[in-house]
Amino acid sequence: MKRIAFLLVAVATVAGIVVSAAPTSGPANEEATAPIYGITIPPGYRDWKLIAMDQLLVPGKADQLRAQLGNDIAIKAFKEGKVPFPDGTMIAAIHWTRVPSEDNDKVLAGPFPGAQSFVVGSPVNVQFMVEDSEKYAATGGWGFADFTDGKPGDKALHEICFACHTPAKDRDYGFTHYAP
Amino acid sequence: MKRIAFLLVAVATVAGIVVSAAPTSGPANEEATAPIYGITIPPGYRDWKLIAMDQLLVPGKADQLRAQLGNDIAIKAFKEGKVPFPDGTMIAAIHWTRVPSEDNDKVLAGPFPGAQSFVVGSPVNVQFMVEDSEKYAATGGWGFADFTDGKPGDKALHEICFACHTPAKDRDYGFTHYAP
Repeated sequence: MKRIAFLLVAVATVAGIVVSAAPTSGPANEEATAPIYGITIPPGYRDWKLIAMDQLLVPGKADQLRAQLGNDIAIKAFKEGKVPFPDGTMIAAIHWTRVPSEDNDKVLAGPFPGAQSFVVGSPVNVQFMVEDSEKYAATGGWGFADFTDGKPGDKALHEICFACHTPAKDRDYGFTHYAP
Repeated sequence: MKRIAFLLVAVATVAGIVVSAAPTSGPANEEATAPIYGITIPPGYRDWKLIAMDQLLVPGKADQLRAQLGNDIAIKAFKEGKVPFPDGTMIAAIHWTRVPSEDNDKVLAGPFPGAQSFVVGSPVNVQFMVEDSEKYAATGGWGFADFTDGKPGDKALHEICFACHTPAKDRDYGFTHYAP
């Protein structure tokens, strides 16, 4: 059971793209701070602009719709297509369950027989990537953080973030492309 | 001078909120204006904030990932859960093809055998809903517009918008719920 729980969290993390939040300053709230990278949830991240979206399916384990949002520094860099991302870049990856929408299907049934609509269900987790080339020099300039219900994942979870993102090294460790 | 600067900013602000997206005034560019409702593509809509996202599957016809973005008026209303939406509300629905990501699947294959990642492909179309309770009184206060490659769909297409949205009348004709 414990292993399944870990896998579920890991799934979210791996597929989660490049994630991070802001380095904290001042007195830290341990319970709200992600281990290793010392990142807390950046205020207002839900209002950041859309980078892209995706769907993750891990049979029997995860079925998600996911959005990647970026702060202004991130969005500017994505639009210019420049890597590495500048210090201050913050990217949020929000993951929800994917659920069928009966309401939408009813509307679609008339004009489009067999049509299926899937919408976001409940929140699963939120991940952040925060660029600070000095502070996070050992991990490609990125700090990583994962939160579920506002609480950070454990140390073991955060230890695998960077390794999983390494295949995207030529894109500065981010999997997400800006959606046209 | 200071006052002039202020006025310029104010004009720009008002124009940006009220005019830019919606009904055109002055000489209209027929080719860029959606029929019936007279709506042109609102500048900057891609940078609006995320309302929600969904997936649409119409077997043999459409396989899409879709995002709904809103201008500031729309986002405020969604967060407050108030209907009807106030005049000036603008909602964009951006639709992309859904495509498998081999890059992501490779990364996922190790820790999560069988995992599949789907990302946005190419743009399909962009649709807008613009609230103007007076101008669009006959269609629930909403003007509708559909664009593909920057060009509006034809009159026949726009004639069905309102009818299709009528089942969502109790939510002011919008299908989308704000994603938590």
